[in-house]
Amino acid sequence: MDVDIYSGSATPELAQAVASCLGRPLGRRELHRFADGECHVQIQESVRGRDIYIVQSTCHPVNEHLMELLVMIDAFRRASAARVTAIIPYYGYARQEKKTTGREPITAKLVANLLSTAGADRVVSVDLHSPAIQGFFDIGMDHLTAIPLLGEYLRQHMDLSDAVVVTPDTGRVKVADVYANMLNIPLVVMHKRRGGNHAQDVEVRAIVGEVANKRPIIVDDIISTGGTIVTCTQALLEAGAKPDITVVATHAVLTPPAEERLCMPEITRVVTTDTIPLGNKTLGGKVVVISVASLLAETIERLHEGRSISALFRDWRESYPV
Amino acid sequence: MDVDIYSGSATPELAQAVASCLGRPLGRRELHRFADGECHVQIQESVRGRDIYIVQSTCHPVNEHLMELLVMIDAFRRASAARVTAIIPYYGYARQEKKTTGREPITAKLVANLLSTAGADRVVSVDLHSPAIQGFFDIGMDHLTAIPLLGEYLRQHMDLSDAVVVTPDTGRVKVADVYANMLNIPLVVMHKRRGGNHAQDVEVRAIVGEVANKRPIIVDDIISTGGTIVTCTQALLEAGAKPDITVVATHAVLTPPAEERLCMPEITRVVTTDTIPLGNKTLGGKVVVISVASLLAETIERLHEGRSISALFRDWRESYPV
Amino acid sequence: MDVDIYSGSATPELAQAVASCLGRPLGRRELHRFADGECHVQIQESVRGRDIYIVQSTCHPVNEHLMELLVMIDAFRRASAARVTAIIPYYGYARQEKKTTGREPITAKLVANLLSTAGADRVVSVDLHSPAIQGFFDIGMDHLTAIPLLGEYLRQHMDLSDAVVVTPDTGRVKVADVYANMLNIPLVVMHKRRGGNHAQDVEVRAIVGEVANKRPIIVDDIISTGGTIVTCTQALLEAGAKPDITVVATHAVLTPPAEERLCMPEITRVVTTDTIPLGNKTLGGKVVVISVASLLAETIERLHEGRSISALFRDWRESYPV
Amino acid sequence: MDVDIYSGSATPELAQAVASCLGRPLGRRELHRFADGECHVQIQESVRGRDIYIVQSTCHPVNEHLMELLVMIDAFRRASAARVTAIIPYYGYARQEKKTTGREPITAKLVANLLSTAGADRVVSVDLHSPAIQGFFDIGMDHLTAIPLLGEYLRQHMDLSDAVVVTPDTGRVKVADVYANMLNIPLVVMHKRRGGNHAQDVEVRAIVGEVANKRPIIVDDIISTGGTIVTCTQALLEAGAKPDITVVATHAVLTPPAEERLCMPEITRVVTTDTIPLGNKTLGGKVVVISVASLLAETIERLHEGRSISALFRDWRESYPV
Amino acid sequence: MDVDIYSGSATPELAQAVASCLGRPLGRRELHRFADGECHVQIQESVRGRDIYIVQSTCHPVNEHLMELLVMIDAFRRASAARVTAIIPYYGYARQEKKTTGREPITAKLVANLLSTAGADRVVSVDLHSPAIQGFFDIGMDHLTAIPLLGEYLRQHMDLSDAVVVTPDTGRVKVADVYANMLNIPLVVMHKRRGGNHAQDVEVRAIVGEVANKRPIIVDDIISTGGTIVTCTQALLEAGAKPDITVVATHAVLTPPAEERLCMPEITRVVTTDTIPLGNKTLGGKVVVISVASLLAETIERLHEGRSISALFRDWRESYPV
Amino acid sequence: MDVDIYSGSATPELAQAVASCLGRPLGRRELHRFADGECHVQIQESVRGRDIYIVQSTCHPVNEHLMELLVMIDAFRRASAARVTAIIPYYGYARQEKKTTGREPITAKLVANLLSTAGADRVVSVDLHSPAIQGFFDIGMDHLTAIPLLGEYLRQHMDLSDAVVVTPDTGRVKVADVYANMLNIPLVVMHKRRGGNHAQDVEVRAIVGEVANKRPIIVDDIISTGGTIVTCTQALLEAGAKPDITVVATHAVLTPPAEERLCMPEITRVVTTDTIPLGNKTLGGKVVVISVASLLAETIERLHEGRSISALFRDWRESYPV
Repeated sequence: MDVDIYSGSATPELAQAVASCLGRPLGRRELHRFADGECHVQIQESVRGRDIYIVQSTCHPVNEHLMELLVMIDAFRRASAARVTAIIPYYGYARQEKKTTGREPITAKLVANLLSTAGADRVVSVDLHSPAIQGFFDIGMDHLTAIPLLGEYLRQHMDLSDAVVVTPDTGRVKVADVYANMLNIPLVVMHKRRGGNHAQDVEVRAIVGEVANKRPIIVDDIISTGGTIVTCTQALLEAGAKPDITVVATHAVLTPPAEERLCMPEITRVVTTDTIPLGNKTLGGKVVVISVASLLAETIERLHEGRSISALFRDWRESYPV
Repeated sequence: MDVDIYSGSATPELAQAVASCLGRPLGRRELHRFADGECHVQIQESVRGRDIYIVQSTCHPVNEHLMELLVMIDAFRRASAARVTAIIPYYGYARQEKKTTGREPITAKLVANLLSTAGADRVVSVDLHSPAIQGFFDIGMDHLTAIPLLGEYLRQHMDLSDAVVVTPDTGRVKVADVYANMLNIPLVVMHKRRGGNHAQDVEVRAIVGEVANKRPIIVDDIISTGGTIVTCTQALLEAGAKPDITVVATHAVLTPPAEERLCMPEITRVVTTDTIPLGNKTLGGKVVVISVASLLAETIERLHEGRSISALFRDWRESYPV
Repeated sequence: MDVDIYSGSATPELAQAVASCLGRPLGRRELHRFADGECHVQIQESVRGRDIYIVQSTCHPVNEHLMELLVMIDAFRRASAARVTAIIPYYGYARQEKKTTGREPITAKLVANLLSTAGADRVVSVDLHSPAIQGFFDIGMDHLTAIPLLGEYLRQHMDLSDAVVVTPDTGRVKVADVYANMLNIPLVVMHKRRGGNHAQDVEVRAIVGEVANKRPIIVDDIISTGGTIVTCTQALLEAGAKPDITVVATHAVLTPPAEERLCMPEITRVVTTDTIPLGNKTLGGKVVVISVASLLAETIERLHEGRSISALFRDWRESYPV
Repeated sequence: MDVDIYSGSATPELAQAVASCLGRPLGRRELHRFADGECHVQIQESVRGRDIYIVQSTCHPVNEHLMELLVMIDAFRRASAARVTAIIPYYGYARQEKKTTGREPITAKLVANLLSTAGADRVVSVDLHSPAIQGFFDIGMDHLTAIPLLGEYLRQHMDLSDAVVVTPDTGRVKVADVYANMLNIPLVVMHKRRGGNHAQDVEVRAIVGEVANKRPIIVDDIISTGGTIVTCTQALLEAGAKPDITVVATHAVLTPPAEERLCMPEITRVVTTDTIPLGNKTLGGKVVVISVASLLAETIERLHEGRSISALFRDWRESYPV
Repeated sequence: MDVDIYSGSATPELAQAVASCLGRPLGRRELHRFADGECHVQIQESVRGRDIYIVQSTCHPVNEHLMELLVMIDAFRRASAARVTAIIPYYGYARQEKKTTGREPITAKLVANLLSTAGADRVVSVDLHSPAIQGFFDIGMDHLTAIPLLGEYLRQHMDLSDAVVVTPDTGRVKVADVYANMLNIPLVVMHKRRGGNHAQDVEVRAIVGEVANKRPIIVDDIISTGGTIVTCTQALLEAGAKPDITVVATHAVLTPPAEERLCMPEITRVVTTDTIPLGNKTLGGKVVVISVASLLAETIERLHEGRSISALFRDWRESYPV
Repeated sequence: MDVDIYSGSATPELAQAVASCLGRPLGRRELHRFADGECHVQIQESVRGRDIYIVQSTCHPVNEHLMELLVMIDAFRRASAARVTAIIPYYGYARQEKKTTGREPITAKLVANLLSTAGADRVVSVDLHSPAIQGFFDIGMDHLTAIPLLGEYLRQHMDLSDAVVVTPDTGRVKVADVYANMLNIPLVVMHKRRGGNHAQDVEVRAIVGEVANKRPIIVDDIISTGGTIVTCTQALLEAGAKPDITVVATHAVLTPPAEERLCMPEITRVVTTDTIPLGNKTLGGKVVVISVASLLAETIERLHEGRSISALFRDWRESYPV
């Protein structure tokens, strides 16, 4: 395999792991930040005519990582790389993918346009908040999923006999249904409602489906501040769920006070991936990290060799059609 | 009001109604189809420097109506209109807004690009299948909703005491939740599951939530062939729902055998809009059509005068936040 | 030869013939049309990095075939084909290549833009109504001609001793001159004139050149409804031409009532190609179809291997310079 | 009328005449050519937010005039003019509008793209060599014709009783037919043929139609070196035409030895326009110049006020339909 | 004056001052930063059809401020503002305007492209590090200068009798010459040289021109870390300059340890502008801040009313031609 | 080496020299200029899929050479070359790279845009007047320098013991500093000043630095009319410089009366390159021409083989860092 893999400063361990899977060193580049915050890159190997892959999640601090990625793409393009692929395991701003009221940006689209403008020829991402973001790109876009890896872990490491898949809000039911289908267990939907008789402004979490004496698996794509998960957990416990709750999500954003919140003892397990580095956040040993490195490595290999990416997921799709 | 409203051949009654709301005649144009199917348009009034609105749903036959719309836009642009706005009440191909497997088109994005290429300056649509389609456009895009009109009708004409909102699949729960919130009644979610012990290939419709002795309001954005609605209705009746089922959807595509299917007596009411002409489909008198003409007219007036479109929905959004 | 040839639904026999010439099977794809007319394609072989050729005339129904072609191009592009070439033997809308009065579209240009927007890298067509349509494209465009094949047929199968080439209107004289030059026979030009003394509104067909006792070969690029040909035939006969008239045209659009009209016994022969499928239209056995399959196959081979396309016509151009 | 008209250095008299028709002075600008041939412009009035019209034919020396026009457009655009319209009465390179053999440019399209790139919002031209050049533009393009002016002159100043319209080659028959129709006289077509029995390389001019004892009006869009006209004149005289030949063409390019050639006494009259300055070329007093200044002035007025351009030609088109 | 001025979070005081000059309140918008660093904006007034000016320097932290600006532009564009002008008094990344070695980005161009892509119609900036950055834009670009304000201050508040203008490096001599010309005092150029006999790696600051017993005015466009200024100051003092040194620069970036460095007593005065907020950096009372607010306000007024921007500087340019 | 090198008509000897260095014949093409000045090209070898290099300086007459280059690029692109690289050793209009007053073009940017529009994939140039012009391109741009070649010549052929590098104006000091650094001799800066007491309108040339008894090497990028050089020479001589002056510049534009001016005996040597053909201008035998042919040949070889261009200058950059 003769591909060139470069890392930004957001996800260096993942980039290293991907390169190792492919038996390649990471490309040498000097990333520099001037005293006034301007970033600069100087690529230290000839890349003229090469097939370049930059691994960089646009996670916190998102603007720094995004701009760094754009600057790197610009440098590779001006250095006459044959093709520049941005591997963005976690695509920041994905939740700003539509206007919910007037006079808002659609920043997920803006980011797609910025990537094209900088000169990316192709973008690869994992479990986008909305799959329609694929359509935001006119350049090549490969949308991978970590759900087979996460679901397989649950199937092998959990007793699923009295488990239910719970979706914490109504916008992500489809993903929960994929898990429910894969694990062959019931689905439960939670949604926000105004509570009480005349207390219009009190918001409660309504539960659609059976949870009494069940062990809930709360499913989402992103764990952000943990607020939604705590609210759901409380509602589930009040509704009689067993105090053995699993949380599954591809992207562990974990902005404060997420760590603190997820410490509640009824949450016994958090299963996620390394699309965002967890650093020293172990959540009291409850966190399980499934690496997407080999998935990304396999993707790069297939992109470089011109083989099918969808074939990576064919067996899984055929076994668990939704 | 000094705007120029033109109609394609897809929704001439709606276009006329919009023009009437604004006290304007429709602009004169000659739409012609040659013997070999090529369409041609000749605009019969000077449009140089004018603010043009073309009303055309891209409903069945979608390719004919889409191409006719593109040709009209081209003609207006070349005739030096100041601004061309395509009012597309029903946006065909909206359900092809993402790749669900490999090597598929994302036709909803393709259509957005075709509209821009033809020269549209702005697009207006109603209740898009996925709101992220807004982000497919880099030109101006205004996304309207008919849900306030439809919900208001239900509130005024139905006994909601034992009603529940039912969503027929997991991809559209968010819209159902909007209705449930607006009507202040419970939400029920249906999803597809494999049935029986070893009958992996039998698909059944699972119900999440309570429906026994309830009167279901099945909510969707589009009624297509009616297949899903019939399956859901049967499952709901088997689960003990009352045989008084309402179907609500913004867009009545109603391709055969939808009419026949919706004739089942347990479906007592179908509430929809005129984004697609129903022609002589009365569904045995059960259909209620709420016109979006005044909504579109108000939108055109505001666009022409440079006033806020989001303000149209402000009160409603504030009363029923989701 | 290792190229991938795909067929749309417009010209499947021609596509098959092209593939056979190259000793290749047609690529597998599933073309589907939903109940409401939306088309969908799913490509069933990996095309990542491949050199793709789609054979699809945009003949009747032109909008269906054009949109299908655009959707296929979108799917191939998103599936990361290395290059997508649209082989459009008959380019629909070619006759709308200029504004003849105010406020008209230039749909031939619109179609060129739509093909680029969808993602075509290259377009190949045969005997465009106006050669300037080449200039409508900024992507690669190869303009082939079937005139050498058609002319050669005439030379080998007709007694040309008293033949004349007749052009039915003044916009296509150049093409007629190419035939006249190739067959080394006189040229006759017909044009529309107002007739009589004060009958300004009666249109007659004036003849410039000698036709008495001649056997006319009426030459055009497209036979559409046959109306022009019938009018010309009558005028030629009135002017003393022999009742043995040949009609030659690359594209047999033949929209009704063309078949009926061409049945007149004085028309003894119609020579055309398979850029548009004739189906069961045999015109009473008078039609001769020269296939362009090997021309297209040779073109694909040369495109794939990076060899000259103009060389295909070099000998012919040098023998019959115009 | 409050428009800003600027002149390049190609057609200053015409620009002045246009401005005078509109009662406006020409805008002040300093056009400069450095010692090494680089041109420079400095606009000497504020043009921010103004509606700018630049009058500049791209006549000989075409590259100098074209580049000067592009530089002027760039300056106006960067100076924030609201709209920049290039009035190009004679569009150079129009005859390079298609590939006639392999590996040629399509320079008429290239020029269209260069004008757009420089920042022109709109282009106006007169009697383009091929009307399909309109379709080369995606920006606004207005195609005017001087044929009504030229035809009217002929009708008023000539005895048409035994006149015929002659087209010198087969590519321009349509224009000749327009004149023939307008003047209500016969049409004659000339085309190149190989002459003699075995003299394949001798090219002669064949005549289709009656010319004996007729007075020919040779019609073309451009008079270039006059070579074609001389050849045609000789062939016409040999065929018995009266030695009283009129030449009509919109654009008098008149590159040497055109002046000398047109001196032959049988050519009694050359009718043309001022889209290209004739300077002191009087052709021995035989030349008649019809100015297009008021046509252009009327066009500018209508563009500025947002009124129809096609209406300028409506009466004429309706009287002489082709 | 009826313009809408909005502020980002980088330069709120300057934005407020500009708005005050124009007698307008700042537009209301909610700028929000999510816990994970994503920024979001919601505009709280209707902007449809309005002429919008966003005041935002892209100063430290540059990536945050740049991305915020892009998001704001996207929101205004999608909210259908008529025109969006980004007023960027200090243009971050301006020093990365060319490649100095291989495989570097040209980030100043990348930023220009990002601004266009986001939807800015026009950009205004002050004293760009390289004036050629103007040419990086194809959208409107107005380049202002604060040198007349700064120079005028020096002329009124300093004894210039024995002053010299000093440029600290060879890349900015042209700007120094503008000051020297305006103040009518000599110019001194400093440049880096290798020092000593065999000490190739020791860099010293060579002085070209007379400084003994002179009072130096060190001129630059940006004061960054102050390192260059300290080195120059020391070299000047060693060469016999008076210990009364003035530093003048448009943009006070002042990243640490600039404050500390500029405290050296021989630097008696630092004259700069408010393109970047100084916050509480007073440099021991030595800093003089000339506001560019009225310059920007006058510019906005002229842009809105379509009057000349260059006229703002005409008198100054004519008095001090360089 | 299997590359295709074509020459325009501006620099045929240089193109031939480059091709010879690579052991390749120049590609065959027919460049033609019609009587009215339109240029035309016909490429006489198949270029489909080839890697094309066109060598053409845009020197006097710049508009002819530029347009010819654009037409050639168009022809190669339409003939389906794989990649078209414009080698423009001297980039005309480079001095128009910014607005110096209002309402001017930025023609250097316009030219960059025209080259992209015509279809160039890459541009190579030598010693651009402003290095920021690199950033004017979004396509690939390689900026070479002939300074190492010119400097090396000076080092080998001159006694540098009492030499100084002189820059004739303040805009090009950086380049002079590169020479000064490379030759390890002092730097002198000249700039324009108003002279005398009340003679504000008299412009003199001020000298910053020591020139008495020195031998000046006047350094510039372009020698145009020689006016600046003569003025500087006179000022240097008046200031006591030795009458042995060397002039060095990459591009010898030499428009009249440059030859005459440079004849002054105190100018003993003019060192330049062949980016512009000197023809028979020998400047009385004083001119030394260093060819850039091998530099360009090496660049083409590296571009074709995908090897680093910056590596060409690495040693030099490391030895003489600025």
